[in-house]
Amino acid sequence: MRQTAGAAGSGQFGLSKPASPGCMNGMSPFTPHVTRSVAHLGEKALIALLVDKFGAAAPPAPEGPGDDCAVLDDSTRRGRRLVTTDSVIYGRHFDAGVLPEDVGRKLIRRNVSDIAAMGGRPSDAILSLQMGGDVDAEWLARFAAGMREAALENDVRLVGGDVVRVTRGAFAAWLTLTGFAEKPMLRTGGRPGDFVYVTGTLGGSILGRHFAFRPRVDEGVFFAAHPAVRAGMDLTDGIAKDLPALIPDKAAAMLALGALPFSDDCLALAAKQGLPPAHLAITDGEDYELLVLADAAGAEAFEADFRARFPETKLTLIGRIVPAAGLSPGRLYDDDGAEIPEGGFDHFA
Amino acid sequence: MRQTAGAAGSGQFGLSKPASPGCMNGMSPFTPHVTRSVAHLGEKALIALLVDKFGAAAPPAPEGPGDDCAVLDDSTRRGRRLVTTDSVIYGRHFDAGVLPEDVGRKLIRRNVSDIAAMGGRPSDAILSLQMGGDVDAEWLARFAAGMREAALENDVRLVGGDVVRVTRGAFAAWLTLTGFAEKPMLRTGGRPGDFVYVTGTLGGSILGRHFAFRPRVDEGVFFAAHPAVRAGMDLTDGIAKDLPALIPDKAAAMLALGALPFSDDCLALAAKQGLPPAHLAITDGEDYELLVLADAAGAEAFEADFRARFPETKLTLIGRIVPAAGLSPGRLYDDDGAEIPEGGFDHFA
Repeated sequence: MRQTAGAAGSGQFGLSKPASPGCMNGMSPFTPHVTRSVAHLGEKALIALLVDKFGAAAPPAPEGPGDDCAVLDDSTRRGRRLVTTDSVIYGRHFDAGVLPEDVGRKLIRRNVSDIAAMGGRPSDAILSLQMGGDVDAEWLARFAAGMREAALENDVRLVGGDVVRVTRGAFAAWLTLTGFAEKPMLRTGGRPGDFVYVTGTLGGSILGRHFAFRPRVDEGVFFAAHPAVRAGMDLTDGIAKDLPALIPDKAAAMLALGALPFSDDCLALAAKQGLPPAHLAITDGEDYELLVLADAAGAEAFEADFRARFPETKLTLIGRIVPAAGLSPGRLYDDDGAEIPEGGFDHFA
Repeated sequence: MRQTAGAAGSGQFGLSKPASPGCMNGMSPFTPHVTRSVAHLGEKALIALLVDKFGAAAPPAPEGPGDDCAVLDDSTRRGRRLVTTDSVIYGRHFDAGVLPEDVGRKLIRRNVSDIAAMGGRPSDAILSLQMGGDVDAEWLARFAAGMREAALENDVRLVGGDVVRVTRGAFAAWLTLTGFAEKPMLRTGGRPGDFVYVTGTLGGSILGRHFAFRPRVDEGVFFAAHPAVRAGMDLTDGIAKDLPALIPDKAAAMLALGALPFSDDCLALAAKQGLPPAHLAITDGEDYELLVLADAAGAEAFEADFRARFPETKLTLIGRIVPAAGLSPGRLYDDDGAEIPEGGFDHFA
């Protein structure tokens, strides 16, 4: 399956860890008042509510909702059609302490980040909802409004979907997002000697950024087109768990832990928890930054080109791919040559 | 949203109604034995198991599983790209009395039926799984084998997906399926005077056919290309609920209840329940037959063309679209001019 790390990752955030101050304005997805519930609305009114809230982000049928299938837009087509899927699930990715708009925005953005990770631009999306009859219609309307906002920001069109009623107290939303890439940036293609770069800053996303990040679409398109870039992905489970997916056979990765770009939230959380910031920077999930491998010979030009094009986006050289001679293939090592444990969470262990 | 009826439909089958004799060989998706569970397998082994079971139905990356997105196959591309989504959920669409292979086959086939309903041919699919740690790895392997079988039957490629761990005792699988149609057959386009046709036979699907149906792909392609056909859809919630979606503005539909093609299971179930077979034929869900509107002027040639091309598939004239003068717009009427109540289930009422 796709996205072993990417999609299945980013687990229990917002539940067992401290919530951000903004979360004090959260709202429960469920209502004890029957007249406010989606069960009371009925299926047709529920779907009309969603389509109404999506507004300009949902085109009319047959491109948009209303027939057996959606007909995808090929007018912006360039190169290959990409597709990815990712979810937001109550009790796993969010709880009643979170704003419904944040949940809706996140569903769009985390999928857009996967398209960005291939160097693509997002296009049409399909939404699948599972919910109990006790879901609050107002919560749902605010969730849909958040989706619309992030969809319009990212040129995503909500072309269709599906609603299934499940047990009370349950809410899960899946988005399947398509996109286009002229020449997709793959995870494979790295070679020993390649430099490892990361965009932005790392760690502490749980303090709020995991709901507020901007997917690196333009940067991804730039990376996919740049001759020095050999492979790339987005960071969802943290470098310790994600980077191994970029390491070629018979190679390992050396990380310069001291060079890692810590976010302010990473430093704040590390101080509070009494942990080294580097630990959080490589094991915290949901950074949604891009991790790329570039040919060392072209690295100077690559860095200059990136900085000229994205003066506002940090790009940091954090390590190198090396032959595995004497090292465990596919693993990470620190400056002192000590192996870094995987650390990222395994969702089925 | 898409598929108001189609996808959200086909609700509680296999749970509250009598199961088919074949269901006696069913299997629970969950195991009390930790060593047999997906939690014990771990995420990587779980995904490897799925990809292994999918076999030839899952191409290698980047077309298949293993990167941030799947890259779709455009080599068979003809006309417009379609997309649809539909699910199988434990406790809603199946229970422990059902064979895991049947659940996997059904997930593929019900999505293929939506592509067929637009006159398309299926292509690439993305799978999203939510499951508790107590899902039985053997059940999952058999579910995946059923998916492979139906995927290969229908030229579906399983190119990617996503796995999320949820609470124990839960299993839900969503498939998002793409396809192509030279000229999609829409639900809109019917006119007063059009004849209403249905393929195959209707009713009593609960006795087993809802797990064993063959999506009408070739018939759908034929319908979409035929000059007499104006609109079409697949039957998932029964004619009483589905046909209104084909009725144009200011029109209604007259149904010849005596002409309805009853399945053997419809007659058996009607006898057992002491109900008229016509009631089951128009309200039972999950027939997955195609319902089309054809220009009455071209109907004779249309019927002859269909029979020449599909000598094995029944095609029955069951009604007509009429101007709504004196009737409620968008509603169905029987031979005697009495309005037929909607009857199909509303999932949120």
